[in-house]
Amino acid sequence: MIIDAHAHYTTAPAKLQSFRARQIVSQARPGPANLNISDEELEQSMRGQFKRMDDTGIDRLLFSPQASAMGHHFGSELISRHWSEACNDLIARIAKLWPGRVSPVCQLPQSAGVSPGSWVEELDRCVREQGFIACNINPDVGGGREPLTPSLADEWWYPLWEKMVELDIPGTIHASASLHPAMHLTSSYYIGQHHNAAVELLSSRVFQDFPGLKLVIPHGGGAVPYQWNRHRGMHVREGLEPFEEAARRVYWDMAIYDTEGMEMLIKRVGSDRVLFATEMFGAVNAIDPKTGRNFEEVVPLFEAVPGLSDEDRYNITEGNAKRLYGLP
Amino acid sequence: MIIDAHAHYTTAPAKLQSFRARQIVSQARPGPANLNISDEELEQSMRGQFKRMDDTGIDRLLFSPQASAMGHHFGSELISRHWSEACNDLIARIAKLWPGRVSPVCQLPQSAGVSPGSWVEELDRCVREQGFIACNINPDVGGGREPLTPSLADEWWYPLWEKMVELDIPGTIHASASLHPAMHLTSSYYIGQHHNAAVELLSSRVFQDFPGLKLVIPHGGGAVPYQWNRHRGMHVREGLEPFEEAARRVYWDMAIYDTEGMEMLIKRVGSDRVLFATEMFGAVNAIDPKTGRNFEEVVPLFEAVPGLSDEDRYNITEGNAKRLYGLP
Repeated sequence: MIIDAHAHYTTAPAKLQSFRARQIVSQARPGPANLNISDEELEQSMRGQFKRMDDTGIDRLLFSPQASAMGHHFGSELISRHWSEACNDLIARIAKLWPGRVSPVCQLPQSAGVSPGSWVEELDRCVREQGFIACNINPDVGGGREPLTPSLADEWWYPLWEKMVELDIPGTIHASASLHPAMHLTSSYYIGQHHNAAVELLSSRVFQDFPGLKLVIPHGGGAVPYQWNRHRGMHVREGLEPFEEAARRVYWDMAIYDTEGMEMLIKRVGSDRVLFATEMFGAVNAIDPKTGRNFEEVVPLFEAVPGLSDEDRYNITEGNAKRLYGLP
Repeated sequence: MIIDAHAHYTTAPAKLQSFRARQIVSQARPGPANLNISDEELEQSMRGQFKRMDDTGIDRLLFSPQASAMGHHFGSELISRHWSEACNDLIARIAKLWPGRVSPVCQLPQSAGVSPGSWVEELDRCVREQGFIACNINPDVGGGREPLTPSLADEWWYPLWEKMVELDIPGTIHASASLHPAMHLTSSYYIGQHHNAAVELLSSRVFQDFPGLKLVIPHGGGAVPYQWNRHRGMHVREGLEPFEEAARRVYWDMAIYDTEGMEMLIKRVGSDRVLFATEMFGAVNAIDPKTGRNFEEVVPLFEAVPGLSDEDRYNITEGNAKRLYGLP
């Protein structure tokens, strides 16, 4: 069994983006969405994902709204809430239509300059009323501009960690749109933000204060495994716990499209801390001229990782996700 | 022979920082430095570097002012100019005192919101009057805050590239202080910025417009080799030249403190594109409890990289640097 811990709804019907566009027009008097999307439209929008799953042997998606479209920098707290509700409600419907294939992961109604305490009501609604099993957390709410977001190490975030522990809900750190003109969104901003999230969290006292908190760093941790000794050295220099121990306080997803990268990640954080992940359809939805396969076809890349035991492979594709998300 | 392509003057006499502190006080009426530092003080300040060189077999340093202290976000254009002149003049004196061991690399008087055309006069002075052989280039002049710096792919930077080509002077991309409260300077901000620099440059037309431009990406390119297929996929998706070819338009320095990381870098960009580098004394100036050696002792880490020919090793420690910087 293969569980894909990182897939986004990047193929939603245009009606969803039409509502988003209307949010620009009606920014001064925002209202909730009324999307009027049929089950048939949802089915059409999911055909690509299900075909990829069938073709490559993926059994279940942890499925969340499109990350770049979360756009928490835009508009007021209420605009962000209406948008998040619309996106999450679609994910909930898809998970109810295909319970055997899709597990729902929500976005949060984050809004720049607004305390995390204001985001937890939507998380509660998603989990208790709609059966969501995890959430995505944008570590850079304003997209790199003012008001700048405090470090994930900061107590500013604690109301969110408290709620996640109360609900026993894991979260994946995932940035959204960037307002920086000099950064490529998926090739650079995401990599830098998710690397940074690992650095901040693993050098913090967050896991002392919230021993039950479950967080996932996506995209193989940015540069963390490759720059491993830089992080080890920083932890020595700053008197922190050994970095190789700190690194095991979180999970790391394997959406890196690269056999050697996967090998390095698994070797460094341990096979019991890695989650199989494709991020389909995401940053590199294109055919690799070297293999003739889509870059996001992660299964054969993972199969080629040398030196893994059956237990390692079980952990990464199934066991870790079942344990982390409480899946049957 | 081993040439270290990346070393900073992080041990300058306190008189240099005293001048910097006075720049805060006299921000409204800035004046040039009058440091009054003796040759003996310079000699004392360099003992650690020379000992490390002797102990580990490094023959020559490419030596530049402390990168984090460049602080181009601070004050006016004139303040940045005075500060850069003071820092560069010390490097020039050190290179003249120890011409057999130190080659001078200058910082530029960059200033947020000011065109690169204003920085080239100091570069010209350093090269023509003082014998500098390279420069460092801050890709994020304002330290992450407004005014945001245009992408390195942007024509905004062209006056600097023109001058570097005219003088035939290579440059290393190197960020300075960060104003972002949620980012660790050396573990995260530098890694993200240098990764981003590679992404922007290698997807740009800069090397078509300046075929003679010589640029170095430090710290093993951030996450680039580890996330190799993500970049290959982005180049396919955006119709750019194959990433593996683009990656050979620059040099990559090996200040990554990690044998497996070095192996991955060399394998991916080629041994003719990698420069030996320590960044001493820098981010991880601490003893590794696993080896008993300083993390920044790069020589034994590099010696342990498997599968390299004598020619590969010559290229990385000596040949590439001699060719790139025109060293004898």
